Amino acid sequence: MATDKQNAKNLPLAGLRVIDLGQVYQGPYATFLMAKAGAEVIKVESPEGESARSRAEINEGAMLPFEMLNANKKGITLNLKTSRGRELFMQLVSDADVVLENFAPGVMDRLGIGWEVLRQVNPRLIYATATGYGISGRDRDGLAMDLTIQAVSGIMSVTGMPDGPPMKAGPAIADFLGGTHLYAGVMTALVERARTGHGRLVEVAMQETVFPTLASILGMFHGKDPSMSLRTGNRHSGLAIAPYNVYRSLDGYVAIICVKENHWRALANLMERPDLIDDPKFATNASRVCNMDETDALIEAWTSQQSMADLFEKTKSHKVPSAPVRTISEVLNDPHMHERGMLEWVDHPRLGRVVLPNSPLRFDETDKLETRFAPTLSEHTEEILNRLCGVSNAELMELKERGVV
Amino acid sequence: MATDKQNAKNLPLAGLRVIDLGQVYQGPYATFLMAKAGAEVIKVESPEGESARSRAEINEGAMLPFEMLNANKKGITLNLKTSRGRELFMQLVSDADVVLENFAPGVMDRLGIGWEVLRQVNPRLIYATATGYGISGRDRDGLAMDLTIQAVSGIMSVTGMPDGPPMKAGPAIADFLGGTHLYAGVMTALVERARTGHGRLVEVAMQETVFPTLASILGMFHGKDPSMSLRTGNRHSGLAIAPYNVYRSLDGYVAIICVKENHWRALANLMERPDLIDDPKFATNASRVCNMDETDALIEAWTSQQSMADLFEKTKSHKVPSAPVRTISEVLNDPHMHERGMLEWVDHPRLGRVVLPNSPLRFDETDKLETRFAPTLSEHTEEILNRLCGVSNAELMELKERGVV
Repeated sequence: MATDKQNAKNLPLAGLRVIDLGQVYQGPYATFLMAKAGAEVIKVESPEGESARSRAEINEGAMLPFEMLNANKKGITLNLKTSRGRELFMQLVSDADVVLENFAPGVMDRLGIGWEVLRQVNPRLIYATATGYGISGRDRDGLAMDLTIQAVSGIMSVTGMPDGPPMKAGPAIADFLGGTHLYAGVMTALVERARTGHGRLVEVAMQETVFPTLASILGMFHGKDPSMSLRTGNRHSGLAIAPYNVYRSLDGYVAIICVKENHWRALANLMERPDLIDDPKFATNASRVCNMDETDALIEAWTSQQSMADLFEKTKSHKVPSAPVRTISEVLNDPHMHERGMLEWVDHPRLGRVVLPNSPLRFDETDKLETRFAPTLSEHTEEILNRLCGVSNAELMELKERGVV
Repeated sequence: MATDKQNAKNLPLAGLRVIDLGQVYQGPYATFLMAKAGAEVIKVESPEGESARSRAEINEGAMLPFEMLNANKKGITLNLKTSRGRELFMQLVSDADVVLENFAPGVMDRLGIGWEVLRQVNPRLIYATATGYGISGRDRDGLAMDLTIQAVSGIMSVTGMPDGPPMKAGPAIADFLGGTHLYAGVMTALVERARTGHGRLVEVAMQETVFPTLASILGMFHGKDPSMSLRTGNRHSGLAIAPYNVYRSLDGYVAIICVKENHWRALANLMERPDLIDDPKFATNASRVCNMDETDALIEAWTSQQSMADLFEKTKSHKVPSAPVRTISEVLNDPHMHERGMLEWVDHPRLGRVVLPNSPLRFDETDKLETRFAPTLSEHTEEILNRLCGVSNAELMELKERGVV
């Protein structure tokens, strides 16, 4: 138990130790990427467990996000509201490389274990903090969830149909853009530390990580009449490319986009409408944009008579950029992602047979890290507190009784 | 010209040199984060310039994404289809830390400057490659744009109204999740290199970077009847929380979400409907979920009589998680993001007065990096080829004539 064999020595973060106070998605995704890259991630929860665990109350399946994001981590409990809990935490921090948290701003300071305290204990420490709006500024204390960040950051105002209400993106993009940036920030600070020997406070605000995704829309905003609608359904954000849409088929929907003229010529031939290529109404992207409704109608007249399978095969062989709109079930069974090892079927003791993802970060010539299920609550408390803090079994019993772990 | 004064010495990536072949969004966003963290990023374009520049043909404003993502980089041209161009490229690579590209798979190998070649020249090199589907597997050569990745990855099938068609997320989330992961992968490999001394091939596929954002939806998929619709408009992906929606006000829309019962109690009091708190139809989240339409109707009956400003102030003071659905214009003028320095008004020589973003990665106690506009085409060719490859002015003239630069 004293060694950590999972960390194959040739994984990029082998030897790195992370104290993970992350909750729900943003923090845990950052430390998920660390664990999968070979770091020893010690997830620290209150004795009640982090809130994402309680989703099992809805149903077992709702635990899946927790299982996804906490794979290959170790789990301990520590009550940071007790002085002995904080003492043990400080002991862990003194020999760690990274502490990461996504509490509301100020929580760690109020507990007396904020950055200014921890850096004294460990000057090489990277302290990473993630919030919705940041740890400074007038909106710092705004209550931030993925939904509210999607609202304030402009995502909703540019998603959905032009004649419909603003619409959220279905997936939790603010949480995960936040989490990826958080991981990125920690790695950057580690690169710096290798040069300077010093730790750093790293900060990420979800609101800020979302902004760059608006790039195309910002271009259109500055370039066109600013009063024009920037909510364009499945059409191009600037209504500047045609065809660019999602079209109905016999048994589903397909996205088609013609970025270059040869894409359009290939599509026209595929549709058995070579006449369109020289038709002044459709001969250039500019003319197709002027006749966008008609262009889309022509394509849908064709796609609506085809099966998804036929459409996919035909557009692929003719090199027309296209993709089926896949259901979640199709995504989970995607042969390509399974072949590449991004997705894996596992038999989980509680969830049954489910798909778990690996890390999207791929490093050539590394050993494969075996997936280890997320820790049950407090699973590794004994091992970690014994190995890293010298807590005896007798003391552990006492700590449990006192509610410290 | 021989020194690079922009790289304030205390920025985390000071001293790092990056050869950037990135195009459009995914690659350039990764190197944007590097440039803003203090690296010397040398953007290498073909003599025609990368495709994102040609958007100026639509209108000047459409250049904004290029300007956003290439700020603080240097720009040179090199024709990699000429042997002299490749020779100069190899010279740059021999002394660089990172080479990054997001061409289609195999392009660099066909040019004779793929990873296997470059690693011989520079064993410490990090080579980063980003694609839509990855550099292996059956779908490797699929044509990938943000739209098609949103289709195949499941994003579209869970975005939009339950009775409407699948819908894309308006922002380019696949490009930017891809770009952020790409940056993250490079930093990870640099952390490893500090320990091992060896470079690494780092790979990122947009399709894979998008998958984790489905976490909540995957939980619902596994937990509930798999035939249920996973497209829930602005409601919770699992229809398991209420209130959770976007509501109409007198002058816009507002997102409101009650994660805890005290949020709901505060909202009911704010609506001057304290009777709802004990009403069996609304007393618990479970009962509100069963009466979701009615719950939403009650809230919208209230919000629709309020102005956005009033709603924001009231929900904030009562600690109800809430946010206005902001327009792009409001986002660009957000006082909080300007106060924090994430957004800056600049007077751009071509675009006029526009907002440019800084990096969402924040490192405490670093000097502020002055924004330097994206390079004009070939702006730094002379400086860089002279300083790093010893090319004389006379030879540069000749290279220009021969179409090498």
